[in-house]
Amino acid sequence: MSTDQNKFQAIISHCKEYGFVFPSSEIYDGLSAVYDYGQYGAELKKNIKDYWWKSMTQLHENIVGLDAAIFMHPTIWKASGHVDNFSDPMIDNKDSNKRYRVDHLLEAFAETLPEAEGNALLAKMDELLKENDFAGLKTLIEDNKIKCTVSGTCNWTEVRQFNLMFSTQLGSVTDEANEIYLRPETAQGIFVNFLNVQKTGRMKVPFGIAQIGKAFRNEIVARQFIFRMREFEQMEMQFFVRPGTQKEWYEKWKEERMQWHLSLGTDPAKYRFKDHAKLAHYADAAVDIEFEFPFGFKELEGIHSRTDFDLKQHQEYSRKKIQYFDTEINQNYVPYVIETSIGLDRMFLQVICNAYEEQDLSTPEKEDSRVLLKLPAKLAPIKLAIFPLTKKDGLPELARELMTSCMPFFHCFYEEKDAIGKRYRRQDAIGTPFCVTIDHQTKEDGTVTIRHRDSMEQERVPLTEVRNIVMNKIM
Amino acid sequence: MSTDQNKFQAIISHCKEYGFVFPSSEIYDGLSAVYDYGQYGAELKKNIKDYWWKSMTQLHENIVGLDAAIFMHPTIWKASGHVDNFSDPMIDNKDSNKRYRVDHLLEAFAETLPEAEGNALLAKMDELLKENDFAGLKTLIEDNKIKCTVSGTCNWTEVRQFNLMFSTQLGSVTDEANEIYLRPETAQGIFVNFLNVQKTGRMKVPFGIAQIGKAFRNEIVARQFIFRMREFEQMEMQFFVRPGTQKEWYEKWKEERMQWHLSLGTDPAKYRFKDHAKLAHYADAAVDIEFEFPFGFKELEGIHSRTDFDLKQHQEYSRKKIQYFDTEINQNYVPYVIETSIGLDRMFLQVICNAYEEQDLSTPEKEDSRVLLKLPAKLAPIKLAIFPLTKKDGLPELARELMTSCMPFFHCFYEEKDAIGKRYRRQDAIGTPFCVTIDHQTKEDGTVTIRHRDSMEQERVPLTEVRNIVMNKIM
Repeated sequence: MSTDQNKFQAIISHCKEYGFVFPSSEIYDGLSAVYDYGQYGAELKKNIKDYWWKSMTQLHENIVGLDAAIFMHPTIWKASGHVDNFSDPMIDNKDSNKRYRVDHLLEAFAETLPEAEGNALLAKMDELLKENDFAGLKTLIEDNKIKCTVSGTCNWTEVRQFNLMFSTQLGSVTDEANEIYLRPETAQGIFVNFLNVQKTGRMKVPFGIAQIGKAFRNEIVARQFIFRMREFEQMEMQFFVRPGTQKEWYEKWKEERMQWHLSLGTDPAKYRFKDHAKLAHYADAAVDIEFEFPFGFKELEGIHSRTDFDLKQHQEYSRKKIQYFDTEINQNYVPYVIETSIGLDRMFLQVICNAYEEQDLSTPEKEDSRVLLKLPAKLAPIKLAIFPLTKKDGLPELARELMTSCMPFFHCFYEEKDAIGKRYRRQDAIGTPFCVTIDHQTKEDGTVTIRHRDSMEQERVPLTEVRNIVMNKIM
Repeated sequence: MSTDQNKFQAIISHCKEYGFVFPSSEIYDGLSAVYDYGQYGAELKKNIKDYWWKSMTQLHENIVGLDAAIFMHPTIWKASGHVDNFSDPMIDNKDSNKRYRVDHLLEAFAETLPEAEGNALLAKMDELLKENDFAGLKTLIEDNKIKCTVSGTCNWTEVRQFNLMFSTQLGSVTDEANEIYLRPETAQGIFVNFLNVQKTGRMKVPFGIAQIGKAFRNEIVARQFIFRMREFEQMEMQFFVRPGTQKEWYEKWKEERMQWHLSLGTDPAKYRFKDHAKLAHYADAAVDIEFEFPFGFKELEGIHSRTDFDLKQHQEYSRKKIQYFDTEINQNYVPYVIETSIGLDRMFLQVICNAYEEQDLSTPEKEDSRVLLKLPAKLAPIKLAIFPLTKKDGLPELARELMTSCMPFFHCFYEEKDAIGKRYRRQDAIGTPFCVTIDHQTKEDGTVTIRHRDSMEQERVPLTEVRNIVMNKIM
């Protein structure tokens, strides 16, 4: 394993050990590619959500929120193209019954070839995929004698499309018409509510609608911890603009979203833009903001110029007019849309990967080390840990008073057991930016030791100042 | 229609008209019993969530959060009893194919009878339901000649059980074993993570785990707007206690939860406790906090003493030991559980119903009225509206400065069109507690008019004080 792979494994273990992410249904041996957020993970995830929501809705006068249901009318997914196109070509091995995504099977094989040969194979694959040439894909697999990893044979079925939407039955089972889908993206909830929001909120184009919510994709091969899950959460914003101005707004949002990521203090060198090589059927421009994960640069957020495709489709399928009357130019039109879309779980993984650090603190006298999460203070699950140095001499009482005064304002943690050094290390591991120790001097002069997570520096400050020091860092 | 029914219809219309709640997929003629939260609804719902989450996790040192996935291992629902017991007896009319919940069919019929006769019928029904006597239920329907509302006939099928869980297929369709359920309650996500949270969080009994999340129930008859939906959100807390102490904790949580509701300032006369007449198989005590909705006193929150039923079931089905070692009494045990469970959508409806008021403001000179939402300031979607009296003389610029200084702290709304009175009324309708008007005097002495929503009182305060006045009301 490479160092980066080791680091990624260490991060996954850390997430489990410190209550950030647990495999779902773990006592039942887990459920593939589904994860639960533990006590610190739930807080970190909520803080990321709140940071995004505030930046979108509270700090933009022309962006409002929405919270649409996961269940939607099934025709919506016809209109959006998901019923017909949201699928992957799959192939089964007849001996093992194992099913593969065709592109994954070919990619894995290409990696075993010399580079030039591998690239030629992938280029051929891309061409066949683009043409939906399933027979050609099967021939490509057979010609290369690609084997199933389970049976070891080349005995393959035809290549077939496999839709990635989960379906279920709504209402009474006697009525067969009631098959519905779990939404594979949150965006459509915004599009079908465009008129409702625009009219009841008296919104003027340009304006945006932001939404956070679960989406579901029946990925055959889900991978890399919480990076690609079957159940995941999206933070999406659809920004409606006058036709013809979409390029300008696309550039603006590209810039603004990158600034948002940088506002969390991450090294800019870890981000890059990557234009989509192949545009989706609805887009006239699309770019990813990629982050350098331990497993390489990968998509963190997408900014897409979706044209008027979705609104027009819903106009056609619902037979309702979806238009906006622009009083400035006295004209009716179907607005164009710029979308910004982040996977919340990916953002969580980005924050954790960026924060995770193993430090060697050894001195010639003593071996020592620590693991810390250098989380932005705004996002840390616990903002302040409060420790009485000992369990007696009235120190716990003083510590309790500080707890009482701080708890209504931010998340605090109280602990009086174990040596101070050990207590500090446990807070480092969950990313608590500040620890305060109440000692005997506190009783004399009212000062406490505040210890900073990243620098491990300690300074004495008045006890009465602690709350403000923390507040200033997290507002 | 009664006045209360009129009021409820008016509230539903208001929710639609002012961007609080839209029928899902409305342009596709809706999806039965599914709703979307609009621009102000999404904010109000988030504020309710945040208020609950803070009161549970931040303000209780011994309660931590969790965010488990909707998808869980299917055996969990065997263990919990949902696969076998989470169902309603249903009956179909053979002529219309319309399906009825047996209890709803009988209840509707009972209402058409003289009171004593109706009550006798319902008592008989309860008895048969308790005994799962499906043949008896069918006979009861036939003996009373109850007719289908569609076909008008008494031509009924047998009574059958209909499970309320939604199911879907996870992963490849070739593998039949992959049927999973959408969770019908969030509680089980807490139980199966009990050991993970307890160990990684070093929690000591008594402690609680709180969670907010979606749950799904395939209700055949979903009713009363967002009161009973097929997709809904729960705010649940499971509190783990030493066996034998559950009664005491049950009483404590009963009291604490009522206080939480009262902390929002609602008239105490609108709440009551109602003990469950029939306990669920897992409970040794259970009570509802009921609220007086326009359609009567109905369950808003449940407090349940769930014994050690769930943890023991998971111990048996998962074959993993789920025990806690209590160092105080040097003993291993399976903890008992007190649950507090609110439907978030119900809480939303409660807040709206309680806040909605139509006021007649007529004077002998002029007819006038307003509709207002007397929302608690903490929960209001918009905290402060800022209005320059006119669009000129530098007033918008002053108003903009105030916006800039307040926006990072709370949600503000800026508007410069229409008469001030009209602007006030629109804010009343969405529950904004404060409006500030910048006028010519502001330029002279730096004061503004702050207008209070409920009293409609206006007072002049220094512009520089506005932010603090609002902050003090919402902290």
